Amino acid sequence: MTPKIRAGVLGATGRIGQQFIDLLANHPLFELSTVAASSSSAGKSYANACHWMISDDIPEIAVDLVVQECTPGLECDLVFSALPADQADTVEIDFANAGYPVFTNASSHRMRKDVPLLIPEVNPDHLSVLSIRNCSNEKKGYIVANPNCSAAVLVTALAPLHEAFRIKSVIVHTMQAISGAGYPGISALDLLDNVIPFVPNEEEKMALETKKMLGSFLDGQFHEAEIRFSAHCNRVSTRDGHLETVSVGFHRSPTEQEILEVWQDWRPLPQCLNLPTAPEFPIRVRSERDRPQTLLDRNAGNGMTVTVGRLRPCEVLDFKFVALGHNAIRGAAGGSVLNAELAHAKGFLGLS
Amino acid sequence: MTPKIRAGVLGATGRIGQQFIDLLANHPLFELSTVAASSSSAGKSYANACHWMISDDIPEIAVDLVVQECTPGLECDLVFSALPADQADTVEIDFANAGYPVFTNASSHRMRKDVPLLIPEVNPDHLSVLSIRNCSNEKKGYIVANPNCSAAVLVTALAPLHEAFRIKSVIVHTMQAISGAGYPGISALDLLDNVIPFVPNEEEKMALETKKMLGSFLDGQFHEAEIRFSAHCNRVSTRDGHLETVSVGFHRSPTEQEILEVWQDWRPLPQCLNLPTAPEFPIRVRSERDRPQTLLDRNAGNGMTVTVGRLRPCEVLDFKFVALGHNAIRGAAGGSVLNAELAHAKGFLGLS
Amino acid sequence: MTPKIRAGVLGATGRIGQQFIDLLANHPLFELSTVAASSSSAGKSYANACHWMISDDIPEIAVDLVVQECTPGLECDLVFSALPADQADTVEIDFANAGYPVFTNASSHRMRKDVPLLIPEVNPDHLSVLSIRNCSNEKKGYIVANPNCSAAVLVTALAPLHEAFRIKSVIVHTMQAISGAGYPGISALDLLDNVIPFVPNEEEKMALETKKMLGSFLDGQFHEAEIRFSAHCNRVSTRDGHLETVSVGFHRSPTEQEILEVWQDWRPLPQCLNLPTAPEFPIRVRSERDRPQTLLDRNAGNGMTVTVGRLRPCEVLDFKFVALGHNAIRGAAGGSVLNAELAHAKGFLGLS
Amino acid sequence: MTPKIRAGVLGATGRIGQQFIDLLANHPLFELSTVAASSSSAGKSYANACHWMISDDIPEIAVDLVVQECTPGLECDLVFSALPADQADTVEIDFANAGYPVFTNASSHRMRKDVPLLIPEVNPDHLSVLSIRNCSNEKKGYIVANPNCSAAVLVTALAPLHEAFRIKSVIVHTMQAISGAGYPGISALDLLDNVIPFVPNEEEKMALETKKMLGSFLDGQFHEAEIRFSAHCNRVSTRDGHLETVSVGFHRSPTEQEILEVWQDWRPLPQCLNLPTAPEFPIRVRSERDRPQTLLDRNAGNGMTVTVGRLRPCEVLDFKFVALGHNAIRGAAGGSVLNAELAHAKGFLGLS
Repeated sequence: MTPKIRAGVLGATGRIGQQFIDLLANHPLFELSTVAASSSSAGKSYANACHWMISDDIPEIAVDLVVQECTPGLECDLVFSALPADQADTVEIDFANAGYPVFTNASSHRMRKDVPLLIPEVNPDHLSVLSIRNCSNEKKGYIVANPNCSAAVLVTALAPLHEAFRIKSVIVHTMQAISGAGYPGISALDLLDNVIPFVPNEEEKMALETKKMLGSFLDGQFHEAEIRFSAHCNRVSTRDGHLETVSVGFHRSPTEQEILEVWQDWRPLPQCLNLPTAPEFPIRVRSERDRPQTLLDRNAGNGMTVTVGRLRPCEVLDFKFVALGHNAIRGAAGGSVLNAELAHAKGFLGLS
Repeated sequence: MTPKIRAGVLGATGRIGQQFIDLLANHPLFELSTVAASSSSAGKSYANACHWMISDDIPEIAVDLVVQECTPGLECDLVFSALPADQADTVEIDFANAGYPVFTNASSHRMRKDVPLLIPEVNPDHLSVLSIRNCSNEKKGYIVANPNCSAAVLVTALAPLHEAFRIKSVIVHTMQAISGAGYPGISALDLLDNVIPFVPNEEEKMALETKKMLGSFLDGQFHEAEIRFSAHCNRVSTRDGHLETVSVGFHRSPTEQEILEVWQDWRPLPQCLNLPTAPEFPIRVRSERDRPQTLLDRNAGNGMTVTVGRLRPCEVLDFKFVALGHNAIRGAAGGSVLNAELAHAKGFLGLS
Repeated sequence: MTPKIRAGVLGATGRIGQQFIDLLANHPLFELSTVAASSSSAGKSYANACHWMISDDIPEIAVDLVVQECTPGLECDLVFSALPADQADTVEIDFANAGYPVFTNASSHRMRKDVPLLIPEVNPDHLSVLSIRNCSNEKKGYIVANPNCSAAVLVTALAPLHEAFRIKSVIVHTMQAISGAGYPGISALDLLDNVIPFVPNEEEKMALETKKMLGSFLDGQFHEAEIRFSAHCNRVSTRDGHLETVSVGFHRSPTEQEILEVWQDWRPLPQCLNLPTAPEFPIRVRSERDRPQTLLDRNAGNGMTVTVGRLRPCEVLDFKFVALGHNAIRGAAGGSVLNAELAHAKGFLGLS
Repeated sequence: MTPKIRAGVLGATGRIGQQFIDLLANHPLFELSTVAASSSSAGKSYANACHWMISDDIPEIAVDLVVQECTPGLECDLVFSALPADQADTVEIDFANAGYPVFTNASSHRMRKDVPLLIPEVNPDHLSVLSIRNCSNEKKGYIVANPNCSAAVLVTALAPLHEAFRIKSVIVHTMQAISGAGYPGISALDLLDNVIPFVPNEEEKMALETKKMLGSFLDGQFHEAEIRFSAHCNRVSTRDGHLETVSVGFHRSPTEQEILEVWQDWRPLPQCLNLPTAPEFPIRVRSERDRPQTLLDRNAGNGMTVTVGRLRPCEVLDFKFVALGHNAIRGAAGGSVLNAELAHAKGFLGLS
């Protein structure tokens, strides 16, 4: 039996850091070896440093780990980063420069020309940028980013449609859960009996990231997809799960039935490779008139499946539908773990 | 001092019926004389028949009124109807045929060619259809409908833009409060930590009603506006207030500043006439980046003002913004009372 | 391998009925063979008849079961009943008279002198009443009831203390989840931003049932415990999990440490017998100053563990603490399934 | 017309500070002249410094006030303090020493022997301690505290009962709104679908403050009431309004009817004096079986009335009931303003 790859988690005590811990606790390839967080937590046991918010208990393997500082030198073969963007800016670069593969949920480096912004089902070929980078780089370190949580849900639903029918324009409205804002994040006084029609920088991120991921990687460069894109982002009173309503226009206008078939027949690379965190179905179509619903569908495929429904014609663009995914799993920690699994399968992690 | 006009309320015990009672309790023109509801309530005092849900107490004037059956013969000069659509179908026709002016919140007759679908700030001229009807009608009864609550908010925000720049297309996404579904309405089990991306018939109503209201009344007929229209309707966890995110395309594309000015300078008929329920400003523009918010803005103008904000360019259509209004006041009972006030000012109520 | 015992569920489409289905889907002793519900559901597939509210999908085994009427003749060896009390009154008697063992969550027959009101950890000896009943009864049918959900949580926490120190008086305040009221149950308009300090009949049930369960079964009769008991019941905005704050006075006043030890060392019969649904620990003590919390602790032991915490002196009675349990599992379907497992172990189910 | 007394507000930008601003905006005796807050806010206009959370807009009078530092020298005749306890410790002493009457909501000085802990309806005679203090004090400054929000609600409900029947013991359980924790206060992640059975220091404060307020002021000293007292404090998902369930034992046990009469007939000093912020009824008895409810009753008497209901025998103590009051008004800013009104009426404010 091959020894597992030792994984560290940067920003391990926050909401997304906890989700990483939860996903790595029983992972077949990776072994949680190190947790790191702010210096105020460093030196404490993980259990003491962490206000655990996932309803199961802290996994046994993490309880007694001593929290480290977020500086290179950690004893692990790769790091997952749940750092806030302002810290990720420099820390992730430091780790990459020190030779660590960094799989990050932070937004800092997503748009860099040497960083793949990756959803393994959508644009696995973007990982090739690492070969170029690594050729010109003595150390084997690099950064692989997963997208913004709202973009992750949307792009997963759009990718097979774009491949089949070429998307021309998208208008998307999000109703995003509070866990997306971290902890403590949103004040209960701002949330109870309220909707906040604004999520800082979210609309801009969704536009840029969607275009990068649905774009191509050719001749050693990323080329963004030519899609007219407009997002309306809102924060609503749900714990987990980003629900999005989408109007989409196509270059080659399909029938309703063709769209459904494309979604249902989609079997991209991670599913073919049986990557451990890949859900059986990356997209699931619900036929009820009032699904997907945040509460009922966010945990589909252990939080890695995007559920779509209510496909119907749109009088302004071509079609409209509803999409839902788990922001903290598919849209964050789970996406990043799947990225590392794909990197492993492609030979970008050590000896594999 | 002119004696007040006696007003009855049909469906007086439900959520919207209560809102009518609340608005009529101290009205300068109308006097609440009669409450009517289902036969299971008939004969009881209003206080006993009603599960009062507005946080103030039941108005004194209503407490001891004996609930009547919803059949013509009520002692009043006009009726407001908060009946559910299935009952409104026939009951409102009966009342109109019996000579009562009926100001209704029900959807049953909104699209009839002899019924004005009215927002007094938006299409007061549509009331003229009553003159035609009344000429061919011995009795003076008629029906005036206010629109669906989501359409009321949207159309108020769009009307001055349509007048100034001619709207070509609209994509709207709603986040609707639970009071819109009546009482008991939505189960708490369906709402807590959830969003339901479906409101029965709402998207269809919004499309049809918007086109009728923004259309014209010429040569004795309604002509619908030629607007491409698409709605995504959602139920979220708020008590009152429908928040809507809107993308809009124009025939004559304005600047951001021009739109703001049109909104701020709008002074339509009800404000010129100083109708009692007309708010000082039918539209209010907020400049904060995260407003309007449901909780903070729904009561603007005593629930009669529509608040807009976050105006910015849309990469797919021309502009996008956020609109909010109180569904149970501007979008229901308050809208209907204002309709009656306009009818009174225009001479359609008795001797006035 | 012994064939499994065929189980039917009465009232299978409601919130608690669904919890039964979920628990029976992979049960080692029982096989879900039959679902029954109101005549409006009868004849439909379970998937069509049921508004499924548990976030996983409907278990495969149940999807295509055809819903039956709730009348004897069902093909099963025992029935679980999630019927509302008004129907349980007669239907459960009919099933018992027809020879079925009935394990019920309904309140109708809990206080009968020939019905054990059972928490297997607390009063397994009460099951003996069935021997007496069965001697005088040709058919082998009987009813075994689990208690009210609030009582189930409380009595589990109190039972080892009563055994060790004899309880003299209890004042309990509940903060109960909405799933306890069934579906549709509480209107969202009554729940959002609200607490309802009243749950119909709950305070009376808690008093009577606590005294019966903590009482004795001697000489063929139940003798209620002599405890002064007072409950304040409230409905709050949580989905699942009843949180209760408790003040308790003892005849033999223990130290704080003694109470903690009694709780931690408790190892009652179902745990000794390794009954499939028995949690490893029926009571779990949390040491944090702000636990148990509804959201974080309701699923402990798959919803079968009662979590206690915040033990401290009470200036009026002797001690006070907080207790939490899952109302729909430990307090309803899970409790009933565990009852059936105990009945099976004790030889009250068929050939076992 | 007498010129108004100039009032400053310390901690003016927080949740309770805002409530002070709202109450002082149109006050007949006091004129809001000065707002002060942390040095990070100082120098900004109040509108810019403040994340306004009360649904009306910021009162005109406050919008353009320039925020001052919280140090003596402010141009006003008295100050209201909404400071957090750690700042109130020294700042309020500084202001009192500098000659300002300080009416505070902070907990820092409530238990001092020269500070009246005041509910004007309950213990107006406690104000006499100021005479003693002022005799030995050249400057006219002093501190008057209002109690903890949970204690304010409870003690108002208990005071007339204590006067009539002498209370022996109290067990109270609170379900407290989030506004009690300030802003940002509780994270939405901790609140949604949850109850937190712990409010830091609240149970201790309730015990001490209740005994001080229901105690006597004799011979120049406070003597605490001899009541056995036990509190269970919980945070629930409501915006405003603390709901409390109470069991109470008496020395002279009354009938249910006697208690109701004592509540209904209570007409204490502020009502006799017609103080501007005193509600017509300090206690209101609801007869419905499920009232008071947080949402429906918190605004009774403009948030100054405590609503009680569900009076019934308690099997452990003598009676039990439910009480509700607005924590941010009666339990904080409104209580403090009423304190100042009483001080004015009693001649402790300037020339009056």
